[in-house]
Amino acid sequence: MDITFNNDPKLSILLPVIYYAWQDDVLTNTEFTTISDFINGQDWLTKAEKAFLKSKITLSEPPSRSELFHWKEKINQAIDSNPKIGGLTDLGLLIANAERPAFSNEDITKIAPAFAKLESGLGIMGPEVISGFRRREKTLTQEHNTVESFNVQKMTDLLDGNQADIINKVKSIIGSEAFKLDIPTDVAEFREKVLQWCKLLADEGLGSYAYPKAQGGKDDIEGYFAIMETLSYHDLSLVIKFGVQFGLWGMSVMFLGTNKHFNKYLKGAGTLELPGCFAMTETHHGSNVKGIHTTATYNHADRTFIINTPEKYDRKEYIGNAANHGEMATVFAKLIIEGKDYGVNAFVVPIRNKNKEVLPGITIEDCGHKMGLNGVDNGIITFKNIVIPHEDMLDKFASVNEAGEFESPIPSDNRRFFTMLGTLVGGRIGIPRSALAASKTGLATTIKYSDKRRQFGPEGGNEVPILNYRMHQRRLMPYLANSYALTFGLQYLTKRFINRKEDEMQEIEALAAGLKAYTTWNARNTLQECREACGGKGYLSENRIDDLKNDTEIYTTFEGDNTVLMQLTAKNRLGEFRKQFGEMNVSTIFNYVVDKAKTSITEKNPIATRNTDEAHLKDPAFHLQAFQYREKEIVSSAARRFKKLVDDGLDAFDAANIMHPHMLQIADSYLDRVVLEQFQIKLQDTKDEALKEVLTRLYNLFALNKIGEHKAWYLEQGYMEGVKTKAVRKLVSQLCWEIRQDAVPLVDAFNIPASCLGAVATTKAAEA
Amino acid sequence: MDITFNNDPKLSILLPVIYYAWQDDVLTNTEFTTISDFINGQDWLTKAEKAFLKSKITLSEPPSRSELFHWKEKINQAIDSNPKIGGLTDLGLLIANAERPAFSNEDITKIAPAFAKLESGLGIMGPEVISGFRRREKTLTQEHNTVESFNVQKMTDLLDGNQADIINKVKSIIGSEAFKLDIPTDVAEFREKVLQWCKLLADEGLGSYAYPKAQGGKDDIEGYFAIMETLSYHDLSLVIKFGVQFGLWGMSVMFLGTNKHFNKYLKGAGTLELPGCFAMTETHHGSNVKGIHTTATYNHADRTFIINTPEKYDRKEYIGNAANHGEMATVFAKLIIEGKDYGVNAFVVPIRNKNKEVLPGITIEDCGHKMGLNGVDNGIITFKNIVIPHEDMLDKFASVNEAGEFESPIPSDNRRFFTMLGTLVGGRIGIPRSALAASKTGLATTIKYSDKRRQFGPEGGNEVPILNYRMHQRRLMPYLANSYALTFGLQYLTKRFINRKEDEMQEIEALAAGLKAYTTWNARNTLQECREACGGKGYLSENRIDDLKNDTEIYTTFEGDNTVLMQLTAKNRLGEFRKQFGEMNVSTIFNYVVDKAKTSITEKNPIATRNTDEAHLKDPAFHLQAFQYREKEIVSSAARRFKKLVDDGLDAFDAANIMHPHMLQIADSYLDRVVLEQFQIKLQDTKDEALKEVLTRLYNLFALNKIGEHKAWYLEQGYMEGVKTKAVRKLVSQLCWEIRQDAVPLVDAFNIPASCLGAVATTKAAEA
Repeated sequence: MDITFNNDPKLSILLPVIYYAWQDDVLTNTEFTTISDFINGQDWLTKAEKAFLKSKITLSEPPSRSELFHWKEKINQAIDSNPKIGGLTDLGLLIANAERPAFSNEDITKIAPAFAKLESGLGIMGPEVISGFRRREKTLTQEHNTVESFNVQKMTDLLDGNQADIINKVKSIIGSEAFKLDIPTDVAEFREKVLQWCKLLADEGLGSYAYPKAQGGKDDIEGYFAIMETLSYHDLSLVIKFGVQFGLWGMSVMFLGTNKHFNKYLKGAGTLELPGCFAMTETHHGSNVKGIHTTATYNHADRTFIINTPEKYDRKEYIGNAANHGEMATVFAKLIIEGKDYGVNAFVVPIRNKNKEVLPGITIEDCGHKMGLNGVDNGIITFKNIVIPHEDMLDKFASVNEAGEFESPIPSDNRRFFTMLGTLVGGRIGIPRSALAASKTGLATTIKYSDKRRQFGPEGGNEVPILNYRMHQRRLMPYLANSYALTFGLQYLTKRFINRKEDEMQEIEALAAGLKAYTTWNARNTLQECREACGGKGYLSENRIDDLKNDTEIYTTFEGDNTVLMQLTAKNRLGEFRKQFGEMNVSTIFNYVVDKAKTSITEKNPIATRNTDEAHLKDPAFHLQAFQYREKEIVSSAARRFKKLVDDGLDAFDAANIMHPHMLQIADSYLDRVVLEQFQIKLQDTKDEALKEVLTRLYNLFALNKIGEHKAWYLEQGYMEGVKTKAVRKLVSQLCWEIRQDAVPLVDAFNIPASCLGAVATTKAAEA
Repeated sequence: MDITFNNDPKLSILLPVIYYAWQDDVLTNTEFTTISDFINGQDWLTKAEKAFLKSKITLSEPPSRSELFHWKEKINQAIDSNPKIGGLTDLGLLIANAERPAFSNEDITKIAPAFAKLESGLGIMGPEVISGFRRREKTLTQEHNTVESFNVQKMTDLLDGNQADIINKVKSIIGSEAFKLDIPTDVAEFREKVLQWCKLLADEGLGSYAYPKAQGGKDDIEGYFAIMETLSYHDLSLVIKFGVQFGLWGMSVMFLGTNKHFNKYLKGAGTLELPGCFAMTETHHGSNVKGIHTTATYNHADRTFIINTPEKYDRKEYIGNAANHGEMATVFAKLIIEGKDYGVNAFVVPIRNKNKEVLPGITIEDCGHKMGLNGVDNGIITFKNIVIPHEDMLDKFASVNEAGEFESPIPSDNRRFFTMLGTLVGGRIGIPRSALAASKTGLATTIKYSDKRRQFGPEGGNEVPILNYRMHQRRLMPYLANSYALTFGLQYLTKRFINRKEDEMQEIEALAAGLKAYTTWNARNTLQECREACGGKGYLSENRIDDLKNDTEIYTTFEGDNTVLMQLTAKNRLGEFRKQFGEMNVSTIFNYVVDKAKTSITEKNPIATRNTDEAHLKDPAFHLQAFQYREKEIVSSAARRFKKLVDDGLDAFDAANIMHPHMLQIADSYLDRVVLEQFQIKLQDTKDEALKEVLTRLYNLFALNKIGEHKAWYLEQGYMEGVKTKAVRKLVSQLCWEIRQDAVPLVDAFNIPASCLGAVATTKAAEA
């Protein structure tokens, strides 16, 4: 009679391999040949048996579906009968010996190696395949889910702090029907809508919030920043238009002008009855604002200034509020008195009348369509001998006296200009806080969607929420941690700015410049991950990630190009370092050596560099030491390197050029340390145990993820060894897995109006 | 008489410090106090002299501008008289002793330390400040510029290879007036424009290029890919619309159908007389296409199939060409015969009539506004019991016979489905090639602009092209090198695909999946840097970086989510590894041990791990060893780790989840190595010395930059020590500096139609 698996049971020893070969989509024709060669080589098979087996692995004569199904049945029975099976051959044996022993133990020991070699030769990993055959009980990956381990409202209170009232007021406004988010693709329409929104906010008294009470304001700058940040959950064109009008225009008057200017302009600025611009940047002078060419020539005869654009590309470019709505502008220009240049000063210049007609001598072009922020009317302004009265020079830091002479408490033009800029540092606080809010909207949308969206799953089991995949967690959780860390970091910056003393200004400016770059780059990276993590949904405008991304894209450029700002921050840190370890410059580096010695004793010993205990890796003291070590080492090596380059006769400018990347690291390591410290302080201040616990997880992820990002540097320095950096990576992945359970409550704590979240964030699980 | 610097010369020793204090914008009030304290401490000064000096550093009584000017004069004279001056005190001495010696050498040695301490205490770095005072001769940074060291046309020929003719034809078309790039913001308008463009391309015979001659094609798939890539210098909505119509729709018929389908559909597809869609993805089944729910139920009575969408979210989503123009669709659905599920198969289904009216039973929604590609009409299709004839099942891999029975040479549904997908791998070649072209457009625009745009410069010197700044080079040059490397890598992939043999398919699919992810992520990063490097200009739509970025953004998601594709690639590599080192699976790892031993002898000895010779660091053999070592080590450690996890009783699905990030590294290291090899081969084949030289610089930058990106891993492994990774970083920076001179010619060699470049790329230097 014919040979079959049933009437010749021992042949079943190959049944699992044959089934796998047909089922699996990885084996190639070569593998089929491999099996048939193997069969030929088995002397315990008769010619006929070999022929039969080979007939089962002939590509041109595949088994019928019912035959495959029958084989699978047998396999399942065998697996259920013995859960301990290790590989396909063991499985085959079990089937072959099912009724009566077809193979003795001697047989088995004889043939086993050949079968093992066959399996491995086919790249079959036994346990994996068996595990794949098995009918699943639930897996860890399926079981994992959202757990609310803390009180969300309490977390919101912790985040909002003393600004809760104004934050809630703004949220209720942007959540209202009037602020319904449907963004017109038509630019003109969009700009009008944004203007209307700004009017509504001004009517609510939000525009003048930072202005003196005398001019109808609340004299509350901290509140103003909270408004900027909270508005940023909504459309960002609105935020920037708001910032240009009430911040750049109004506050330039407030900080650079004196009482006469306040009375003349601030009220109208705050109510939006007097829309204005901030005209500093010129086409040919972007980052290098000190080099602007616009002139303000003083005429003593009638005590006026003549504002003029000398050459075409000395025009003011990218000026917000200029293309359509602005009536006034704070113009930065070089003051010329009797042919002598007295450096950059600020003047108030009218550009449109109440009928929105551009005034004679003023030319305004539209910057046209942009990558984002198309609700903001950016324009290009050219001045042709515009005459303004003496009183419209903003004269807090410099003025022209009765005698027509220049007067200033700060003789150096450089120094005066940077002092003026210093007062405008507020923009470098508002922008990162806005960027942070945008990141939070992106994270909230993405994490809520990922918690519901299911793709793939174990054979036969349900599909799994994509947020349960380690890779997905690894992409999103560190940014969630950053968003909390930066909340505390930027609150710190804001308080420093509000309570600033004269002598702290340079440090605060450096901190603001740095955190602006640090935060907007973080927003860029966060929103990129959000876009990709939402897949196709992340590409649909209804989910807002596109606008959040495109609008914040320019945040890395305006208010100072990030790369340039990081240089400023680094320059300040280097200066501070030189004062601290000044003697280095006269080439004894005593202090520093002592200091390094300390480090190496306490930290650089083998126990520390190889310490992989979880307790140690989660120790705030370890984090702070590691961050401080990186900061100090980078700045001191920069000082030495720079000195060497110049001592070797390199021009200081060339030396600085070579140092740029190194300088960026100075700023980055400094900012990492500052933010870490603020997170640590916040943890110490948190009393609620549940909040403290989840915040500690986030804190550890922030700290260890940063250390991981810089592990190459730590390894190069010998500050850590491979075993330790590997342990850090493992712990980061573990923390991501744990925080995944808190992720949804953690973004709920941002308490972002539902109308500002992407559509997918509010869909039911079944629809995700 | 009054004390002045003139009548009491020795006081001038402090003049430079005082001048610096007023001039510099870094010194704070504290520093002023420091100076006055210093003055008080000097016993060689009379009370009156101290009073005078202190009066010169009282913040409330600044020196007049003319006084400052006068001081600067003296300083300049002193500096010119002696270029060797090291610090401010030396400078002061020189001024003080200008006419007659005010200080003897004894005096000097006595007071010098105190002055040195003052300088350093103020954070003043002498040489740097002096260098700042000095009137500049040209600096290296200013001198650096563009040099055309090779023949651009020859480089273009090298890049275009055997496809030059079709490439030039396409370039002349997209450079023509009819293809003028002004993108309507209105979506409907934009979609019509793109459709018209596609018609023009079809009229030129480009649509059917890949189709059989019998159906009016050129039977030239390689040419088709060259067309896709070259079109991508132009608008990318056009490219995707083109790809959907002629690639996805037409080629699904070509690869999954048989002759009857070719005759029925291909001609109309190629001429665009029959617009069609590719309907695979469902709302709830994106990455997991195998899990789609749409059904095609066979009815033997009249030999028809009934296409149906069972549940709401089983609808086909994101389908290109569906919202407005598609008349037919290749629909993927589970074939049901007599209640039995025969897995996913493909069917041709009509969705609109010639009047563009949606057919009864079909519902089509518009996906609405997207982040980019708004010229493509993506839609959502729902089928309500649509009846199609038996002949419209695409039956190359499976069919229903006369008896109404299912027939297929591939019994396993899995296997058949992946075989079908395999034939569609072309999309994963077209997309990365399109992404690469977009990166090149961004790089060409950015590099040409950066070569002209000037910002900052040495004191008193001209401003410098921003491309001369090291940081700017560091941001752009590595991506320029990548763009060349990937050109060769993707040409290799294309040739592998075109000359594929059955048994290579899995490897080629894995390579295509991986290079799709690898290249589109590179495009994402390249265009991000371009956007930021162009500053505000990069944000204006006229410079195209916004569209290039937003359009390619979805490239990381469609044709397979990058993260998922990298898993596919890794899975294949892991399988190959297990076959190669199969014995590992049965837990003797002999081969592997031997293999590792080899490595450690030749590479892991102290000489190699610490070798920083430039010759060694530029040695292709070193690069290849390093890349191969990383690839092999990562895949083998993954195999061991995975085995351990499963052996320890973890479910294979949970184990795979933990392994995801590791798997990504497998794919990444594999792709790095493949691309490196192709670059090396291209170098060997290049005969022209000038081309070879510049390509070698690019090659070295590519190789060393990749090693630098993974230095943490190499350090963890002990494959390199810190001295070596630091040397690599230094060399990368040096190569960026050198390649900056070739940068403009290197992007000119892409020969991108001027009309496709950003506006800033074509402006004159004076306007940049």
